[in-house]
Amino acid sequence: MPHYHLALLGFGNVGQALARLLLRKADELRSLYDLTFDVTGIATGRHGSALNPNGIELERALQLMEAGERLDSLSTQPVPVNAFDFIRRSQAQVLFENTPVNYESGQPAVDHLKQALELGMHAITANKGPVVHAYSELRELARSRGVRFYFESTVMDGAPIFSLFRETLPAAHLRSFRGILNSTTNMILTRMEQGETFEQAVAYCQEIGLAETDPSGDVDGWDAAVKVAALSTVLMGVNLKPQEVEREGIRRITPEDIRAARAENKRWKLVCTAERQGQGVRACVAPQLVDAASPLFGVEGSTSIVQFETDVLGLLTVIEADPGPDTTAYGLFADFLNAVRSV
Amino acid sequence: MPHYHLALLGFGNVGQALARLLLRKADELRSLYDLTFDVTGIATGRHGSALNPNGIELERALQLMEAGERLDSLSTQPVPVNAFDFIRRSQAQVLFENTPVNYESGQPAVDHLKQALELGMHAITANKGPVVHAYSELRELARSRGVRFYFESTVMDGAPIFSLFRETLPAAHLRSFRGILNSTTNMILTRMEQGETFEQAVAYCQEIGLAETDPSGDVDGWDAAVKVAALSTVLMGVNLKPQEVEREGIRRITPEDIRAARAENKRWKLVCTAERQGQGVRACVAPQLVDAASPLFGVEGSTSIVQFETDVLGLLTVIEADPGPDTTAYGLFADFLNAVRSV
Repeated sequence: MPHYHLALLGFGNVGQALARLLLRKADELRSLYDLTFDVTGIATGRHGSALNPNGIELERALQLMEAGERLDSLSTQPVPVNAFDFIRRSQAQVLFENTPVNYESGQPAVDHLKQALELGMHAITANKGPVVHAYSELRELARSRGVRFYFESTVMDGAPIFSLFRETLPAAHLRSFRGILNSTTNMILTRMEQGETFEQAVAYCQEIGLAETDPSGDVDGWDAAVKVAALSTVLMGVNLKPQEVEREGIRRITPEDIRAARAENKRWKLVCTAERQGQGVRACVAPQLVDAASPLFGVEGSTSIVQFETDVLGLLTVIEADPGPDTTAYGLFADFLNAVRSV
Repeated sequence: MPHYHLALLGFGNVGQALARLLLRKADELRSLYDLTFDVTGIATGRHGSALNPNGIELERALQLMEAGERLDSLSTQPVPVNAFDFIRRSQAQVLFENTPVNYESGQPAVDHLKQALELGMHAITANKGPVVHAYSELRELARSRGVRFYFESTVMDGAPIFSLFRETLPAAHLRSFRGILNSTTNMILTRMEQGETFEQAVAYCQEIGLAETDPSGDVDGWDAAVKVAALSTVLMGVNLKPQEVEREGIRRITPEDIRAARAENKRWKLVCTAERQGQGVRACVAPQLVDAASPLFGVEGSTSIVQFETDVLGLLTVIEADPGPDTTAYGLFADFLNAVRSV
């Protein structure tokens, strides 16, 4: 029976959801895959860290976080001084990297993942930064060490997108894709259709934890552009930087625009598109009017959608409803299982 | 570099599309997967058979079929006397079973697949019969021989459905599903919305090769029920016979019903549903009115859709447009690659 040591670097909403999922699925993993695990390290941003080669009690770690306390008391070893010290001393076979995203450079997540891979760990992240800034390098490094660099949760949450192509569509050639990939702007547009102003809709998204205090990353289309760049880089083999994606956000869409669209049974959506052009990819994020015949029309609230045009199937569409920390955590969990059963 | 011998039992539209796809992708398989292959056997229903341990020239086989001639001239060995003789003497590592479907018993496809597995071949089929009649037995047999029994193309054509769960959604528990799984009835309903009578719409489907001369397998919901049974058996682990699926076809839907629905911005669809009930599954195929808020609403013509409710993600929807022999062939091709790279 294979036994794995896991390390969780970052223990916010997603990291905690992953811990709960690991607890809930532990028996199933044993019976389905004959697989057991221990979490030998947890590192947080502001609540300390813990290392225990015999396995940290996850329930206790979750309780401490809920109580706003530090995790240091769970450590059977001197508390690591920084993330690199933590990774090295965790003795894990799998690192889950869930530190905050940095769109500019992908750091320090890129270096965390690099270190893990160099130490022969599978490196798994929900962090888009490393995919758009260091995909080729991390993939090659993983290959050379016989481990995996997986990142399913970076686009459309836990829904299988990268693994769809990697595992289920062998030798398929992706020609173009189109979709709605940013939940916050889609929720804002949906709320505006229900009569709210842009400001009210943004405030609502902030209230439910969908939008940041500064919503510009979503509203100006940056998050969508990063996802388009990630899909293009990984699925089309064309390294695209977010800055190379033509980008327009939703700020210019007025309540009048939305009413006018509804009167014609149409909807404004922030649409992502990418298609091959010569050796490159032309990619774009912009508001578009979609009509009822399009599968994008019915995509409301935080739901997302992507349509893939390949050389082997008709248009293939994937829709994911109700994303959240639990489903992001499932993407990480699936990456873990896919990584360990693939080697 | 691994080299595989393939045998094609059944060489109709789908078998020929598979041969064309193998030809088109041969170079890519070599460069992507370091994999080469020969087709060492082709058996047809009415155009003879051929065996050649050094590989049959596929272009030539396709030309002979197009010219309505027999394949026997391509055989470097005595032409096999029946399917079992063919399988045994093909010396293949992979059998593609594409004989006509038999909904009653799944035969003789079940026995063909059984023989292939017993000989240590991967057994791949687009034939629904064996999945609903012998899934557990064939899977166990495959397991015991260290090979695979795959059948991606039996439901929603080449779109990844079985491989989605097998490869990308580890430890996910399927609670229920809902979808439109029969292309012919969906095309008939779409044509009736455009003003055709039921009879005209059926005639159109027959003309384009979507419906059989006797359309009752589609129109009375049998094909959909078989697919529901296959999904329930494989993805929910509950063996369901097509006869156990509550079933109503589309014959009672009149042009008046369709007009009345359209007036309310609704549509009649032949909807498949299945949900767990105790240790079993309650499954149903029946016409339902769907409104514009449902992703089923926009599914027109031969497009199909399925929505999965699991314990790990929000509702996950897959839509496949424009199915046909080429995309069915891709499902078989993907099964081949997934089988050989999984062992």
